[in-house]
Amino acid sequence: MGSKYVSNSVIKRLPRYYRFLGYLKDAGMVRISSRELADRMGLSASQIRQDLNNFGGFGQQGYGYNIESLYKEIGKILGVDSGFKTILIGAGNLGHTIALQIDYQKRGFDLIGIFDKKESLSGQMINGMPIRSSRDIEDFCKDNGVKVAILCVPYEAAEELVPTLVSSGVIGFWNFSHYNIKEEYPQVAVENVHLNDSLMTLCYQVLHDTNL
Amino acid sequence: MGSKYVSNSVIKRLPRYYRFLGYLKDAGMVRISSRELADRMGLSASQIRQDLNNFGGFGQQGYGYNIESLYKEIGKILGVDSGFKTILIGAGNLGHTIALQIDYQKRGFDLIGIFDKKESLSGQMINGMPIRSSRDIEDFCKDNGVKVAILCVPYEAAEELVPTLVSSGVIGFWNFSHYNIKEEYPQVAVENVHLNDSLMTLCYQVLHDTNL
Repeated sequence: MGSKYVSNSVIKRLPRYYRFLGYLKDAGMVRISSRELADRMGLSASQIRQDLNNFGGFGQQGYGYNIESLYKEIGKILGVDSGFKTILIGAGNLGHTIALQIDYQKRGFDLIGIFDKKESLSGQMINGMPIRSSRDIEDFCKDNGVKVAILCVPYEAAEELVPTLVSSGVIGFWNFSHYNIKEEYPQVAVENVHLNDSLMTLCYQVLHDTNL
Repeated sequence: MGSKYVSNSVIKRLPRYYRFLGYLKDAGMVRISSRELADRMGLSASQIRQDLNNFGGFGQQGYGYNIESLYKEIGKILGVDSGFKTILIGAGNLGHTIALQIDYQKRGFDLIGIFDKKESLSGQMINGMPIRSSRDIEDFCKDNGVKVAILCVPYEAAEELVPTLVSSGVIGFWNFSHYNIKEEYPQVAVENVHLNDSLMTLCYQVLHDTNL
């Protein structure tokens, strides 16, 4: 794969298609027209046809999409069966929740280690997995072929950790810190979750954009 | 305010400017050129000049920006002093963390109530605030002029709660559920945090976009 160019905005919508098609599949539906899918997702039918045309011939004029085929194909493109070896660093409140909240296996990841620099946390269990000392991160990554790191640590800790992680083979980051990884390491994959920024954007909208 | 049109992509960048300028201010810096700010933020200098031109004359050719003035002005535009009355619904793992993790006062919000439908949680404390029964949400919103709700609940619960919240005066949602609020209530402000979608986007990138 990887040869066909798909625009970033389409990729950002793929998880949403995948989610919707999953609901429909679980509800026992077999086919759906682009019009109906559009109505349910709040997109236009032509937008949906354009997006899904990126992924081959799953729709037939006047006949709609085969839900299961399309679901599987989008899952394949997203890589939900990749099982990338993944560690989570920072087992405070946020890290603990992020470790518990997500079904990693279904999203293409295999969470195999949780780390914290606080030695007092070492050995405590999260979801049947022990919290390990941050001193062991480098060896653990190399020994286990870790590809992805989830950073639930502050800016300074992220800044300190990322070089080690990259040199130990990590090529993807789910980054909850404000450290700008992509700026320093343009060759790795980064998804940032900036909760504070999201909340401030909401504040702007409530202040300026509501008509209530 | 609210008369001047500012594009969505600029607004999305404002919290980041605010954050950076805050660092610089705390570090004791007084002025900064657009070139230097650009280098630090990983943007182009012309992008920064364009963005900040939306907010009046804070830069002078060859002289740079006054950091404190610009920080304050962007804070004002974002509404960091708004203190919107806010409740959080869903005090499970995620809700608990979201209640604790954020400094709401500094982001324009005043978190005054936490709710969960599980009666067994009622009265338990989070950060000095009692968890209340979801049955009391409507009265609480009306009595306290609640403007914003943080939804840390599943799809079905969000679907059930939103109509009540909107009719009780809520005009903004920080939405961690997959329920599409904006589709049903286009007039309210919504910021979605879709952790699963973010993670799946990362999987796609690791699979297709890394050159390592």
